Amino acid sequence: MAQNRTQTDRDVVSELTTGRLSVYLRCLSYLESIHQETVSSAELAERFHLNSAQIRKDLACFGEFGTRGVGYNVSRLKEHLIRELGIDRRRNVVIAGAGNLGMALADYGGFNDRGFRIAALVDVDPAKVGRTSRAGIPVLSYSDIKRIVAEQNVEIGIIAVTPDAAQEVYESFVAAGLNAILNFAPVQLRAHGHVKLKNVDLRINLELLSFYLKGVEDGTA
Amino acid sequence: MAQNRTQTDRDVVSELTTGRLSVYLRCLSYLESIHQETVSSAELAERFHLNSAQIRKDLACFGEFGTRGVGYNVSRLKEHLIRELGIDRRRNVVIAGAGNLGMALADYGGFNDRGFRIAALVDVDPAKVGRTSRAGIPVLSYSDIKRIVAEQNVEIGIIAVTPDAAQEVYESFVAAGLNAILNFAPVQLRAHGHVKLKNVDLRINLELLSFYLKGVEDGTA
Repeated sequence: MAQNRTQTDRDVVSELTTGRLSVYLRCLSYLESIHQETVSSAELAERFHLNSAQIRKDLACFGEFGTRGVGYNVSRLKEHLIRELGIDRRRNVVIAGAGNLGMALADYGGFNDRGFRIAALVDVDPAKVGRTSRAGIPVLSYSDIKRIVAEQNVEIGIIAVTPDAAQEVYESFVAAGLNAILNFAPVQLRAHGHVKLKNVDLRINLELLSFYLKGVEDGTA
Repeated sequence: MAQNRTQTDRDVVSELTTGRLSVYLRCLSYLESIHQETVSSAELAERFHLNSAQIRKDLACFGEFGTRGVGYNVSRLKEHLIRELGIDRRRNVVIAGAGNLGMALADYGGFNDRGFRIAALVDVDPAKVGRTSRAGIPVLSYSDIKRIVAEQNVEIGIIAVTPDAAQEVYESFVAAGLNAILNFAPVQLRAHGHVKLKNVDLRINLELLSFYLKGVEDGTA
């Protein structure tokens, strides 16, 4: 139990840090697009409404790029973050479930781009196998997962099936050797400790908006 | 600028708090499902890998339900959180874009349930208007947004269109009187200050998994 908790604490810290690195990367990409060459932690904080002390702490290990009074070199810091996030090389992804959600994810901007490649969708429905997504991602047979993962060097699996099928897909992904799984099915999976599982709970976003609307109604927002 | 920042700070705090309330709600729903009647902050923390000091702080305003040594009454605390999140009454939602993503969201578990109701999808494509999602949500004409919002008392708009159409949909939602908007298009929208906008960036989840895989490769995970 104690070991479980330590693992989870590390996961949470890792998720928070990674989330911030991802945000910095987006900010730097924007600055690069408007041809800005350097940026200070204070300007990053001001411009993107971030915490400058947290920025300095997070980027302390990239000290070589931070010159007092000048700040960071935008392009070099961006490249560094890309390496830190492990997206300086291409990671192949397979999506289980070629329904609306799987098809939407296969063609989602940013899922098949800058470090990620959707190798295939897989589905149990023979009527779907052989089709492609609008962007041309092929739908292959669910029974071929193991072969696809091995042949295409897939590292990440996405679960986009119905809640009742999600656990079976999870087990197939683990059996095929995947160590990182993203789950969109709104169900609690029984997870294996050595496999990184990230659950995406889209409903939380609606609850956030409801909380805001209630604040407006109550006159506290 | 100062006012902008204050607004954003409050937004960030509100998002963090709301996110935790949503997590507590899920934990309590689980405990209720296994017929557990009371729970202490320490047990909540231990069982769901949360921070017990943070739990006590977040739930301090619900003190009447927390009896020292006994803990919270699960069902009553759950009802309280539901009221706090403003989902004790039904909020109507409209989705713009009846492509794969819009259709997937219309039928997504938790989006049309417990406090939320998807009133309709809207689309500019005449070929899609008149259809329904698998769960029976109707696709109406995009030009009818204002009427749909008024007639069905819609409070939340979801943007599920392509990036190039997202800003126009945002403006239509604001013009129709919506104050809370969820954006799935991977694009930075020019936002109006009085409208709550929540951007969902799905790519961040893949970057998190990549960061984990890189840690395994480097031997630091």
